[in-house]
Amino acid sequence: MNFTKMHGLGNSYIYIDGCNEPIPDESELPTLAIRVSNPYTGIGSDGLILILPSEVADVRMRVFNNDGSEAKNCGNGLRCVSKYVYEHQYVKKEKFSIETLGGVVEAEVHLADDLESVSEVTVDMGAPQFERQYIPMLGRPDAKVIDSNENIEGVDYTLTAVSMGNPHAVLFVEDVVQAPVHSLGPVIEKAGLFPEGTNVEFIAPLSTNEIDFAVWERGSGVTQACGTGACAAVVAAILNGKSSKDESVVVHLPGGDLTIKWSSKDSHVWMRGPAVTICEGVLY
Amino acid sequence: MNFTKMHGLGNSYIYIDGCNEPIPDESELPTLAIRVSNPYTGIGSDGLILILPSEVADVRMRVFNNDGSEAKNCGNGLRCVSKYVYEHQYVKKEKFSIETLGGVVEAEVHLADDLESVSEVTVDMGAPQFERQYIPMLGRPDAKVIDSNENIEGVDYTLTAVSMGNPHAVLFVEDVVQAPVHSLGPVIEKAGLFPEGTNVEFIAPLSTNEIDFAVWERGSGVTQACGTGACAAVVAAILNGKSSKDESVVVHLPGGDLTIKWSSKDSHVWMRGPAVTICEGVLY
Repeated sequence: MNFTKMHGLGNSYIYIDGCNEPIPDESELPTLAIRVSNPYTGIGSDGLILILPSEVADVRMRVFNNDGSEAKNCGNGLRCVSKYVYEHQYVKKEKFSIETLGGVVEAEVHLADDLESVSEVTVDMGAPQFERQYIPMLGRPDAKVIDSNENIEGVDYTLTAVSMGNPHAVLFVEDVVQAPVHSLGPVIEKAGLFPEGTNVEFIAPLSTNEIDFAVWERGSGVTQACGTGACAAVVAAILNGKSSKDESVVVHLPGGDLTIKWSSKDSHVWMRGPAVTICEGVLY
Repeated sequence: MNFTKMHGLGNSYIYIDGCNEPIPDESELPTLAIRVSNPYTGIGSDGLILILPSEVADVRMRVFNNDGSEAKNCGNGLRCVSKYVYEHQYVKKEKFSIETLGGVVEAEVHLADDLESVSEVTVDMGAPQFERQYIPMLGRPDAKVIDSNENIEGVDYTLTAVSMGNPHAVLFVEDVVQAPVHSLGPVIEKAGLFPEGTNVEFIAPLSTNEIDFAVWERGSGVTQACGTGACAAVVAAILNGKSSKDESVVVHLPGGDLTIKWSSKDSHVWMRGPAVTICEGVLY
């Protein structure tokens, strides 16, 4: 089976081109995802992404985590799929649509100096939600959590909570290098206040269009990059008057930079970042 | 650059065929090893192995760890290199020699039912050494450590020490599943008794030709397989009267089985085990 390994800020997936060759049976996909992701006996990745024809969009992607479960969406995956389908000329325009399990998403590729290869991609990350019922968080279902004092295990923390389809608790800090990511991250992640747990972002706005960022990811701990977390960080900065809608904000993640814009037109958050092809080959 | 990823019991390397295409400059090899081994932005592996022509053997291999340092030898790497050069018809006999930084080593391939592909390989792992100066261990330089009570941080442990080019402290246990690998492994690894540290094997002979095995690897902790550790385990079993020279002993490692024979003819230890091709492709 032919494969391509690609990454966005170190979040890597094995991509199988179902537009060009047969895909294994549905029942074999979880096992295949587990097998190719294994760093010892497989290629090694965060999961498997299928690139498929779509009846409702220009292309379709399916994302399988490295435990075999299927994910609704994946920001880094959207960028890499966009690069792949443009460079393989499956789409011949720079703006197109991608069908995901979570819905149809718009994407736009940005070309390198050679005007052929794709260096960066902007993708629609959808509209954020703020009410406690949507985070989800305990408390009055329709109340928002913006610059709010929340008691966690006897200590008050000032949080802004954002759902980007998944929960984020954003804390403003002076310096992300000094931030207690390892100690406080897991405490907030697992606090009873968040019935489904939460991702925890520690952010330091450097100006109205630049933010230092560190993240404790739900279920993963400290990671190099979290696309939805970067979106949540910029939304939280805007809600707290540190930045503005329709302004491009560069988020400095440990794995590299993402540029985020919260559009006032449709309330959607747009994320621009790199997509890199590592290798391609044949899997036995 | 073309590559092949192969593994032996989950110990995986990226193989570059220097018999067939140009190899990067010497100065770039450590960086290349670090880059290809990175599981996030590279292919992901335990390191990089170059397959090269040799002037003193049938083929030559160079092993770079995933930190860029060069290793003298690698038992799993020898098996995979053997499979590669036989299947690519760089050697046309089933027994041949491989030049390593640690010397020239003999190898023999065992063919699968198709009589073309290699399923297992036997490699010469050299002669074990036992004197404390060669392990190295504190104490009388020419004394051996066989079924010996050694005091480590105030507690006496019964050890057999074997050098297979690297140090091994072997402990006999009733049941490897119950063995204190995580707790005692690091204590022995870092004990002052072993000035360069040591690998620690917990072994339970099931019969004269079968051993259950768990390992704490120096610098790595608990791993799925350790080729030199399996050799040390069988040598220790023989020295303690649990098995015999010239007998094939199957060692059950967490990652799979290796068959070890300590030959009375040349005092060398021979290791037989699987070699698997995961994928091959082009690295960008």
